[in-house]
Amino acid sequence: MAVGLQENSQLYPVPGVQLGVAAAGIKKPDRLDLTLLQLAPDTRLAAVFTRNRFCAAPVILARNHLRVSSPRALVINTGYANAGTGEPGIEDARAVCDGVARQLGCELEEVLPFSTGVIGERFPVERLLAGLSPCKADLKADNWLPAARAIMTTDTVAKGASRQIQVDGVTVTVTGICKGAGMIRPDMATMLAFIATDAPLCGPALEACLQTAVNQSFNRITVDGDTSTNDACVLIATGKADLPAMREPAGAAFSAVQQAVNEVTRELAQAIVRDGEGATKFISIEVEGGRDVSECLQVAYRIAHSPLVKTAFFASDPNWGRLLAAIGSAGIDDLDVSKVSICLDDLRIVQHGAKAPAYTEAAGAAVMARPEVGICVNLGRGNAAEMIWTCDFSYDYVKINAEYRT
Amino acid sequence: MAVGLQENSQLYPVPGVQLGVAAAGIKKPDRLDLTLLQLAPDTRLAAVFTRNRFCAAPVILARNHLRVSSPRALVINTGYANAGTGEPGIEDARAVCDGVARQLGCELEEVLPFSTGVIGERFPVERLLAGLSPCKADLKADNWLPAARAIMTTDTVAKGASRQIQVDGVTVTVTGICKGAGMIRPDMATMLAFIATDAPLCGPALEACLQTAVNQSFNRITVDGDTSTNDACVLIATGKADLPAMREPAGAAFSAVQQAVNEVTRELAQAIVRDGEGATKFISIEVEGGRDVSECLQVAYRIAHSPLVKTAFFASDPNWGRLLAAIGSAGIDDLDVSKVSICLDDLRIVQHGAKAPAYTEAAGAAVMARPEVGICVNLGRGNAAEMIWTCDFSYDYVKINAEYRT
Repeated sequence: MAVGLQENSQLYPVPGVQLGVAAAGIKKPDRLDLTLLQLAPDTRLAAVFTRNRFCAAPVILARNHLRVSSPRALVINTGYANAGTGEPGIEDARAVCDGVARQLGCELEEVLPFSTGVIGERFPVERLLAGLSPCKADLKADNWLPAARAIMTTDTVAKGASRQIQVDGVTVTVTGICKGAGMIRPDMATMLAFIATDAPLCGPALEACLQTAVNQSFNRITVDGDTSTNDACVLIATGKADLPAMREPAGAAFSAVQQAVNEVTRELAQAIVRDGEGATKFISIEVEGGRDVSECLQVAYRIAHSPLVKTAFFASDPNWGRLLAAIGSAGIDDLDVSKVSICLDDLRIVQHGAKAPAYTEAAGAAVMARPEVGICVNLGRGNAAEMIWTCDFSYDYVKINAEYRT
Repeated sequence: MAVGLQENSQLYPVPGVQLGVAAAGIKKPDRLDLTLLQLAPDTRLAAVFTRNRFCAAPVILARNHLRVSSPRALVINTGYANAGTGEPGIEDARAVCDGVARQLGCELEEVLPFSTGVIGERFPVERLLAGLSPCKADLKADNWLPAARAIMTTDTVAKGASRQIQVDGVTVTVTGICKGAGMIRPDMATMLAFIATDAPLCGPALEACLQTAVNQSFNRITVDGDTSTNDACVLIATGKADLPAMREPAGAAFSAVQQAVNEVTRELAQAIVRDGEGATKFISIEVEGGRDVSECLQVAYRIAHSPLVKTAFFASDPNWGRLLAAIGSAGIDDLDVSKVSICLDDLRIVQHGAKAPAYTEAAGAAVMARPEVGICVNLGRGNAAEMIWTCDFSYDYVKINAEYRT
């Protein structure tokens, strides 16, 4: 059950990007599971990948290919993560890239592979290869929503976001899709995100745009604190918009594009949390009054990862003692608890480190009953502030993850 | 449902310690909820407390009292943690200590208070005070099991452990009780433990004995990674055994006592995990081949805190990919994954960072079906090793914590 999230049917095509999908029967029959993106010549691409030491074969290959050439195609499969598969897994991923290169008439190194699904088992290469031809036949610019559907695993809603802006009188489009619902935490997780724009971003501007966007979106969400082997976020810039090249991350035109990319990535990142495995609540956690950003994030993630806090939200129980306990154990050794205050939305629940005088259980329960709740913690020791998003922890999280492979 | 855990009725009395319990109706009627320990004159006591910055009123008071006098009594209530209660909470705890002092004819500062239960609400002082008289009337040496029952909250089994050893021809007894099932992690949690011995431990020997014992027991367990505001572990040495005083942590006699205290604390700590909220499996995690103890613990806790690993154990699903992902994200940046191996009990599942050639899903499922499972990870980069204990993550964990206050 996704919280305040519906399929977004208004995903603008991005000139220079064509997408094709197929039901290749990779793991289950009659399910879209293979996606192909064809990119126009001269497209630039930046990517960030998982920091998990056990990174998947496609991650290794995609990184290598990015180093030696400009990508012309992306191929994405669900069902199998192709992680923990050793050298044979690398060979499998290479075979799929080779298949794509043959279909599209490009070099093997111009293809980036992405996989998501179960770790540790090899995928059926032949079925993937057989699915490439229908993918190619399906290639079109207006295929973002089918692609968003085709990359889903435990997601319940296809996730896409899109913006069109005017830059110096020229329409610029930013469209992105992503997948992910569990195993989510900062520095990427079982998460794949593909964002494209026709803005002529390149060089440092392209890299900076992606980093900035990711840091305020995918690196500010957590579902369960687990980090996956396959995470990747890709920013594609086709340069088809009739604008001068943007090489440096500065200036009004760049800022406008950055803003649009920020909005798209933040909407996508929040969509992942809204569709968090078993989620019944969408929770914003803001920590302010910190000495620096790092300690604000430390406290925010301590709260977001506390199973006791998460189950209390599931129960709509304003058990603020669990918030206190989480804050107190976040590792700030010199925290003066008498300066800490906490609000739930507009309701002050803790003041000077203890229950706020005017607080009542009834008022707390009323706020907790909302499907979207904001926690605001003030540490009372500085001016730094940070915000992250997470969800609650329900029976269904256990069910989904206990039955994932059955 | 506790895993391989039954009430232990063979808890030897410790000369110099008398215990009394009562149903004081603190939060629920007809339930043992108040416990008094009276200690013989000249008893020595060492204690470690929670490191949570939001520590409870009784923790603050107990620390202060320990600084100025030798305790003659301990008073323990369930129902309310008396944490997040500000200055009024301190006054409440002091009033209870004062009541105990009057009952037993000692000084207020010679009483140490302990509380466990809901955070943020004041406890009913009058009911606690009224319960002291029946507690006093109940005082006897052979009351450890009733006391273990009286300190339970979400525990399903009363937890006690006991050893008798011969030291230089003299019988020495070590008996302990504890409570705790959720909000458990190293550096103490919603956990109270009281261990007593008649060995004449004092000064540095007493402190060292407690630290050593705690580090190999209560600081090596985790249920949900949450740290509470009230944790405490107390080691009482009455000195009633007819042996020379043990002041320094050295020598055969001290070693024998340390060994017995280690055994009792480890059994108690493991009992907490076996009775972990919703636990259906008792999981030992050994990490060896690390460069140092710190990185072994880092990997072990990363595994133990992964909701995905814990739900897979609940499902008896040998989803070893989740183990790989947890190890890979434990923060060892220069980990060579091709040197990592993993065993489940005697079954090798991962070798050279990928599925072991001889491994089969059927063999994995057979091991995972056991109620007690050992994970052994070899990092292949050194000679350090560490071991911790945890449990799985079930529907019942969510149920217990979602409904805790209803």
